[in-house]
Amino acid sequence: MSKLLTDLIEALRCLPGVGGKSAQRMAFHLLERERERGLRLAQVLEQAMQRIGNCTRCRNFSEEPVCPICASSSRDRQVLCVVESPTELAAIEQATGYRGQYFVLLGRLSPLDGLGPEELGLDLLTERLAEGEIEEMVIATNPTVEGEATAHYLAQLARAAKVKPTRLAHGVPLGGELEYVDRSTLAHAFGSRQPLG
Amino acid sequence: MSKLLTDLIEALRCLPGVGGKSAQRMAFHLLERERERGLRLAQVLEQAMQRIGNCTRCRNFSEEPVCPICASSSRDRQVLCVVESPTELAAIEQATGYRGQYFVLLGRLSPLDGLGPEELGLDLLTERLAEGEIEEMVIATNPTVEGEATAHYLAQLARAAKVKPTRLAHGVPLGGELEYVDRSTLAHAFGSRQPLG
Repeated sequence: MSKLLTDLIEALRCLPGVGGKSAQRMAFHLLERERERGLRLAQVLEQAMQRIGNCTRCRNFSEEPVCPICASSSRDRQVLCVVESPTELAAIEQATGYRGQYFVLLGRLSPLDGLGPEELGLDLLTERLAEGEIEEMVIATNPTVEGEATAHYLAQLARAAKVKPTRLAHGVPLGGELEYVDRSTLAHAFGSRQPLG
Repeated sequence: MSKLLTDLIEALRCLPGVGGKSAQRMAFHLLERERERGLRLAQVLEQAMQRIGNCTRCRNFSEEPVCPICASSSRDRQVLCVVESPTELAAIEQATGYRGQYFVLLGRLSPLDGLGPEELGLDLLTERLAEGEIEEMVIATNPTVEGEATAHYLAQLARAAKVKPTRLAHGVPLGGELEYVDRSTLAHAFGSRQPLG
């Protein structure tokens, strides 16, 4: 196989979930049928890797110093939702009708990985809370051990700035069957049962 | 979401088996953790799309006018294996100890798709057979209706040039269970049963 083709197959493996076999299939597919779109992908990818940085205000991915959400005048400036990564921000934007602002930690508190308050931009977050505009901080870190520890820390920051911290509701997922819900979720949902209307 | 990020997600969908959700996951993964490798992929992809053409002798993908296999002095010039696409060539190279040469059709006879003998480079193949070096032509088209029709046509070409045509053996796959082998394969394998020892 030609050197460039071998290099292409190897390079495609940087994509998540793509092993040697899929990478080879992708390379052949592009060469056989999608040269134009492959070239377009190459150009967009290069631009994206070089130009997309982080918003100076919320740390989400952005080509501009301030991202469209932070710059928007139609978004509610009294609510701030804190997420671990841009992936979660995108999920919330796509699934909910949330119209407030965001702050992206780009990680979670994890001292063993060298991720402390500074790496998560918590000084920036503290400044933001001190501005006095924000009234509620929705903590939307992942429900993992590290995510929960981060949520705890964030709640303290909020209270110190007289901002009301809230957390996404935990419980049984909609459409799931109780039989297949894991024990700790079920126990939590049972303990947090709600009175009906 | 920023324009460039949306463009990147859209562009990633040219990869086979990648839908909107995977494309988004890939884009975020590269931006969050693999900028260097993402940039490298962009560069290799651009080069590959622009520089990889087809070998003038066997029509396999090649950066040079003549590919390494055709140019190699250590490959057997008396055997020529005909495949539909570079993917199949790669599969045979990786799985078998075959040391002969190849010819890649870049398709299969399919009049409805406008693929006739000319599009498959059969004039080039005829010239090749006429050179007189080749003694055996291994027909390795896919065992589909169109692949079989192509194989039939190729066998006639070979016979006309006094070259012995051979075909990959059909039968029960190794490691398979008879119960799960499709009926036509099983019928063929039964009909073509071989004497032992």
